[in-house]
Amino acid sequence: MNNTLKGACIIGQSGGPTAVINASAYGVIKTALDSKDITRVLGAANGIRGVLADRLYDMGQEDPYELSLLMNTPSSELGSVRHKMADPDVDDSEYARILEIFQKYNVRYFFYNGGNDSMDTCEKVSRYMARAGWECRIMGVPKTIDNDLALTDHCPGFGSAAKYIATTCMEVSKDARVYDTGMITVLELMGRHAGWLTGAAALATAFGAGPDLIYLPETVFDMDRFLEDVTAIYDKTKKCLIAVSEGIHYADGAFVAEAETSANDGFGHAQLGGLAAQLAAVIKERTGAKVRGIELSLLQRCAAHLASEADVKEAYLAGEMAVKSALAGETGKMVAFECERGEPPKSNYQRKIGPLTVSLEIQKGEAYKCKTKLIPLDAVANLEKKVPLEGINAEHNGVTQEFIDYVLPLVQGEPERPTENSLPRYARLKKVLTTEMDGGAK
Amino acid sequence: MNNTLKGACIIGQSGGPTAVINASAYGVIKTALDSKDITRVLGAANGIRGVLADRLYDMGQEDPYELSLLMNTPSSELGSVRHKMADPDVDDSEYARILEIFQKYNVRYFFYNGGNDSMDTCEKVSRYMARAGWECRIMGVPKTIDNDLALTDHCPGFGSAAKYIATTCMEVSKDARVYDTGMITVLELMGRHAGWLTGAAALATAFGAGPDLIYLPETVFDMDRFLEDVTAIYDKTKKCLIAVSEGIHYADGAFVAEAETSANDGFGHAQLGGLAAQLAAVIKERTGAKVRGIELSLLQRCAAHLASEADVKEAYLAGEMAVKSALAGETGKMVAFECERGEPPKSNYQRKIGPLTVSLEIQKGEAYKCKTKLIPLDAVANLEKKVPLEGINAEHNGVTQEFIDYVLPLVQGEPERPTENSLPRYARLKKVLTTEMDGGAK
Repeated sequence: MNNTLKGACIIGQSGGPTAVINASAYGVIKTALDSKDITRVLGAANGIRGVLADRLYDMGQEDPYELSLLMNTPSSELGSVRHKMADPDVDDSEYARILEIFQKYNVRYFFYNGGNDSMDTCEKVSRYMARAGWECRIMGVPKTIDNDLALTDHCPGFGSAAKYIATTCMEVSKDARVYDTGMITVLELMGRHAGWLTGAAALATAFGAGPDLIYLPETVFDMDRFLEDVTAIYDKTKKCLIAVSEGIHYADGAFVAEAETSANDGFGHAQLGGLAAQLAAVIKERTGAKVRGIELSLLQRCAAHLASEADVKEAYLAGEMAVKSALAGETGKMVAFECERGEPPKSNYQRKIGPLTVSLEIQKGEAYKCKTKLIPLDAVANLEKKVPLEGINAEHNGVTQEFIDYVLPLVQGEPERPTENSLPRYARLKKVLTTEMDGGAK
Repeated sequence: MNNTLKGACIIGQSGGPTAVINASAYGVIKTALDSKDITRVLGAANGIRGVLADRLYDMGQEDPYELSLLMNTPSSELGSVRHKMADPDVDDSEYARILEIFQKYNVRYFFYNGGNDSMDTCEKVSRYMARAGWECRIMGVPKTIDNDLALTDHCPGFGSAAKYIATTCMEVSKDARVYDTGMITVLELMGRHAGWLTGAAALATAFGAGPDLIYLPETVFDMDRFLEDVTAIYDKTKKCLIAVSEGIHYADGAFVAEAETSANDGFGHAQLGGLAAQLAAVIKERTGAKVRGIELSLLQRCAAHLASEADVKEAYLAGEMAVKSALAGETGKMVAFECERGEPPKSNYQRKIGPLTVSLEIQKGEAYKCKTKLIPLDAVANLEKKVPLEGINAEHNGVTQEFIDYVLPLVQGEPERPTENSLPRYARLKKVLTTEMDGGAK
């Protein structure tokens, strides 16, 4: 079987950025630039919207060193987008425009780097092109700090965000316990429907100092029980550090963040401070303690300076394998991960006392193995993977050792991080639009 | 002249913690443990309150390796305190108690690690001991992320906080510009009366990507002018990143954070979200743009994972020199820094375009030199060093190249940072109280 298909490729980025989404883009771009069959590598400005608007960068014009710095540049360097495509069976106008662009540049490969919605976009474009008879190989490259994509062990972007959260929780935990006066601290973490990120705060507790209580969006939040949990710890230690997901909700499904800002409870405006500030106000009113709310906000998704080496490498691998698989004839698939974890290192998360036994296996990355597989786009699009109940403790205010063992390998290692004057040195791309060029080879 | 004075020493920590205050403590402890004249090294639990309460740790009981990890452990490991001492000429009851403790343990050396208030405490204790005829050498070891201590080039703690702020501003700047839709982001930084930390955000702009506008507490804040500044940039680029000090204030001295939360302006409660959220609400109302407020909160003062090597080393040096000076007969002084900066590296802060010229001198730390000097406690106590007008631009919405050149050397270098499973490995001290021991040699 001759799988050779010659033509240009487009790479686009979509959805919320991560610390390593550009490493995936680099995996795609580098592998595509190195291939014989891909004749030109185009980067879509702001994802699918750049395709629709014919705003495409010629990646072959970039300096190779600057391109390589994408490995450590946070955010989506090509620009991102949030754009829900119509069902092509209902309204195919945008798809017709995409086909027009594909024909204009002879695009035979399309790589889309994003989360759930992006896989949905990929799947729809793939379906349309097949029906239109335009031979084109379409591959999804996963990313999301939320780690909520189905059918993959984990997602690129999650490990680095988890590492940032664990490290920050350790530091805040030290800081918030420094005075001999009482202090309660509430940390608000991302992940509206899935608690992977919030649960990662437990790594801090497992390996040093971290939150006493952790609340995920997978369980029902009960304010009275929450205040009992907090008070019990505060009464004993005069300190309490709490990590909450932005998506914690009551039994009726109402988000705590929204419910607590309704007019009749007196806790203020939604626009002024998020959940952390609101919970801090509730705790303060109930306990009289000094309470501080901290929202990690964007910091947790763009902190390339704390990226995990495992995450950076896997992000690159996902991009590389998307191109290699497409060149081999695959289409309509997403690159996913299949991992072996081996014997987990011992932590003091359960015991919370005594010195730690360091697992040299994990530190050397020997026990953990990650390889890629392909899964059909229509199987993964629009599904959400949540933290299973085995990952959450019986009291619903913490995670289990199983959860720790799952996350720990994903935060390992320090990638190379080029700096200039001890500050991060990010990629500086020229971003030459094809429409501004006379022509241009690969 | 024979300066030999034999006896125990006490080291205490006071005020808000920093990423490197423990490096200073280690400088004191290590140097004291190594000296022949200091017979026992005691750590005060929660600063002067630990002295008053006879809660003193015997630092000689600690494992040397664990002690050495203080170099990279954020927060105040001995515990901190905020405690304003009475004037000993008015009420000397606490001083009498301190003398009692000094006599109990034959304390002849007292090292206090803190900011303005701590130097004031040192000065008062020093004055009292002199009058009481208890021979005792008292030295201040500076720390503060705010960098507002007078008569020293800069303070340990500032460089690391500045590096954290610059790095975070770079990352947020990348993240906040990722979509092709409009977005305004407000970052709130610490420093109520001095704008050093907020100004450090300009390092991000100088060396890559950072705030478009920066407002320090040294100038008068004008809301109309602020909204004009923001709108001008937003209208042109559809993006605007703003860094504000928590201490910005109107012409009448009222803090914006407090004024904007008064009942009659409808912008909500002070307890729910701080200045960033409030300014975000004002900007949103005026421009209709999507606006996000981010408060760096405690993260900026405890981020040891981004500590500057220069800062860590200088923090240790300050502690070391405090002990060495005291052993040589000095008392009633604070260790301060005197620096040479050499030729500054070129940045694109003024031009904001083009590639950067990297200064190898700065990267290698060759041009910058820092040495210590001693200044009388009564000269430094209760003074505040603010950013001079030469450091602030004419429009009062940014800093000058002079400011950048001052700060840049202070953020240089990556210290060793021991990790365990790729997470920070902090010191784990036994903290053996003298009152729990039978006796105990050094």
